[in-house]
Amino acid sequence: MEYYTGVKQKGTLEISELLTQAKPGQKVKVNGAVHTIRDMGTVAFVILRKREGLLQGVYEEGTGDIRLKELKEAAAIELEGILEENEKAPHGIELRMEKVRILSEPTDEMPPLAVSKWKLNTSLEAKLNYRSIALRNIRERGKFRIQEGLVRAFRDFLYGQGFTEIHSPKIGAKGAEGGANIFKLDYFHRPAVLAQSPQFYKQMMVGVFDRVFETAPVFRAEKHNTKRHLNEYTSLDFEMGYIDGFEDIMAMETGYLKYAMEIIEKDYGNELRLLDLTLPNVTRIPAMKFSEMKELISEKYGHQIRNPFDLEPEEEMLIGRYAKEEWDSDFIFVTHYPSKKRPFYAMDDPEDTRYTLSFDLLFRGMEVTTGGQRIHDYRMLTEKLKARGMSEEGMEQYLDTFRYGMPPHGGLGIGLERLTMKLVGEDNVRETTLFPRDLSRLKP
Amino acid sequence: MEYYTGVKQKGTLEISELLTQAKPGQKVKVNGAVHTIRDMGTVAFVILRKREGLLQGVYEEGTGDIRLKELKEAAAIELEGILEENEKAPHGIELRMEKVRILSEPTDEMPPLAVSKWKLNTSLEAKLNYRSIALRNIRERGKFRIQEGLVRAFRDFLYGQGFTEIHSPKIGAKGAEGGANIFKLDYFHRPAVLAQSPQFYKQMMVGVFDRVFETAPVFRAEKHNTKRHLNEYTSLDFEMGYIDGFEDIMAMETGYLKYAMEIIEKDYGNELRLLDLTLPNVTRIPAMKFSEMKELISEKYGHQIRNPFDLEPEEEMLIGRYAKEEWDSDFIFVTHYPSKKRPFYAMDDPEDTRYTLSFDLLFRGMEVTTGGQRIHDYRMLTEKLKARGMSEEGMEQYLDTFRYGMPPHGGLGIGLERLTMKLVGEDNVRETTLFPRDLSRLKP
Repeated sequence: MEYYTGVKQKGTLEISELLTQAKPGQKVKVNGAVHTIRDMGTVAFVILRKREGLLQGVYEEGTGDIRLKELKEAAAIELEGILEENEKAPHGIELRMEKVRILSEPTDEMPPLAVSKWKLNTSLEAKLNYRSIALRNIRERGKFRIQEGLVRAFRDFLYGQGFTEIHSPKIGAKGAEGGANIFKLDYFHRPAVLAQSPQFYKQMMVGVFDRVFETAPVFRAEKHNTKRHLNEYTSLDFEMGYIDGFEDIMAMETGYLKYAMEIIEKDYGNELRLLDLTLPNVTRIPAMKFSEMKELISEKYGHQIRNPFDLEPEEEMLIGRYAKEEWDSDFIFVTHYPSKKRPFYAMDDPEDTRYTLSFDLLFRGMEVTTGGQRIHDYRMLTEKLKARGMSEEGMEQYLDTFRYGMPPHGGLGIGLERLTMKLVGEDNVRETTLFPRDLSRLKP
Repeated sequence: MEYYTGVKQKGTLEISELLTQAKPGQKVKVNGAVHTIRDMGTVAFVILRKREGLLQGVYEEGTGDIRLKELKEAAAIELEGILEENEKAPHGIELRMEKVRILSEPTDEMPPLAVSKWKLNTSLEAKLNYRSIALRNIRERGKFRIQEGLVRAFRDFLYGQGFTEIHSPKIGAKGAEGGANIFKLDYFHRPAVLAQSPQFYKQMMVGVFDRVFETAPVFRAEKHNTKRHLNEYTSLDFEMGYIDGFEDIMAMETGYLKYAMEIIEKDYGNELRLLDLTLPNVTRIPAMKFSEMKELISEKYGHQIRNPFDLEPEEEMLIGRYAKEEWDSDFIFVTHYPSKKRPFYAMDDPEDTRYTLSFDLLFRGMEVTTGGQRIHDYRMLTEKLKARGMSEEGMEQYLDTFRYGMPPHGGLGIGLERLTMKLVGEDNVRETTLFPRDLSRLKP
């Protein structure tokens, strides 16, 4: 019988520990994957890939009992050596190698992609086919570290604002957003669907916790094959009660974005440098009505309005350009979307019921958030369902919740992969999706 | 055009703000749901339900322009009044009501469940049928606040240990755990499955980030109808590279559990008091081999061993009892499970290949975690697949990852709902699942 008491301290150090806890001249031990070996005859540079970045090992012929020929690229090793400063090396340090212990060896030394290059010069298709290898390139993986910062900041910010985290089911009897874009499955011989959003659940939970959020996958069986659509993505959702108006939702999102940029600046500086990124300024985000915005870009850029009820991707781009040129902002809230383009639960604007108390957030010319106030009155909700010719079937418990009282409330959903994509400057959402699911891609 | 600059300060206060930022005698404003009204004629107590707990309002006839008769239970209101101390009231404070503003009114005043009672005396069936109402009972909702603490601690602890958070797809071509327990769906006219676990993805990402975790739903089409099984649950998963052995995984989990109990003690004290809970001691967790453990409980409790390859629920209970009686521990690691009961990727024990370098964690007599070391050598992995008569189809990219080098690694998966259930002392996992999915339940 043994006892476990917690994490054991290891003899090996991470890069940040080498920089803060060790001194030049000191003997240290590290582990990592052999990223690349540059053999110059009597001297060689062995570059280790560690989770915090690259670390340079320097081999000199005849040192210790290291046999360089036996060291393979892509092996996992433990390395012992003397820490030294070298401003040309990554992080300004290197290790004079004294001992190597091989932890695991590759079967094939030659990966299908040259991951040790600074830029992975290959097609998106190839990167996705060899995803687990492609992401070993440190700039490729850096995008997903930034993504972590975005979702981590979302939760931490909302915990601080009194939100409770929920976990709603992904298999259900009915989709919240309606329409045909629903994946269907057989659930023990009963028809079921995959959740398009946690909308019904987070609203129901507003009556319980006042403020809730969820960060989870959602599923859309859309047959779009574009650079901005995925059939499965991670949605950052929140819903809050006791709002004075849908402006509270936009104010909360602005607060989140400010906080996220602070966290990324503070904790993901390595990745910002790797990717050479400048974070957007979110001191203030302008907001403008949908119909006014349409006219403004039509006037300024001579754009012809074809669909008065929705924004085309090209219009989103022009609005983003307008926001940058006129208000020096990478973000813009477009408010008061037409009612016929919003789901039944959206609250209509009492001043003009053709529009809703809703908004999209555009980031560098692309929609990354949809949100707004919801109907909280049972009668208003069921009447709107009826007016749209929709059935109440499958949403009895959702609707019943409103009978027994609900505060005025609203919320939003943010597409994590899109937000990451615009932040890191990619133009295809698959670049910032770990394992994308689209019309043609179901593996790996 | 307007600008948004972040969260607006509201005039209303939360309970913790009343306790720290306001003084007795001060006029304050709060909002909340009318949980219950106790009308005693000229005086009435109006109990508000807020996210941090209950708050007592005291109404005296003739005060201001309040008409008590117009105030309905389950309404959402804003209340203005004088803060006073009252040690008999919740949190030791109450509000002498001066003004009431009704934000939203219920259609039906009489909820299907008496949620304002201290204990919600009704069947599990009724609670689940009216989930969004049942959870308005503050003890019912308290369990899910504790659940939040568990998952929040999991992420925060692992961030601190250098893990990166990942989001793996839930729709895929092949299940990681094999077997028949897989939900199938049609993916644009191609067969697809719902993920039983993020196993393949987190292993592939160990080669990228060294240490990764995910907190996300998993799907099991098991036809079990028991108190401990769900067909969809939230799995807390991690996977870490550069381990010296599978003991590192158990040490990491022990560290997590310690941290979780500290966070819950510190930040969820209200809920611990509501539910009258004592947290388990996790100073040290004993570990014992599977086969030895079987014999020990057989000897001590006269239990007859029927299946030498797996633990029956009754055996888990006896092991839990043994751990409590012999080592005064609510937790116990059972190690070295038989190879034939573990998936193909489990690392066999080189000292006795009938067993694996794996473990389960039992908490108060029930399995809440399965983990262990994985095979990191390509040849060993493909040979084990062959020996089991399994096909490589659908896992080409997973297997290929091992060709190009992988560090020794291992990980675990924790069932969040089960962990919560045992922590809050429930005996059915549906009690600690927000919206359970089982053989018969697909709604709400």
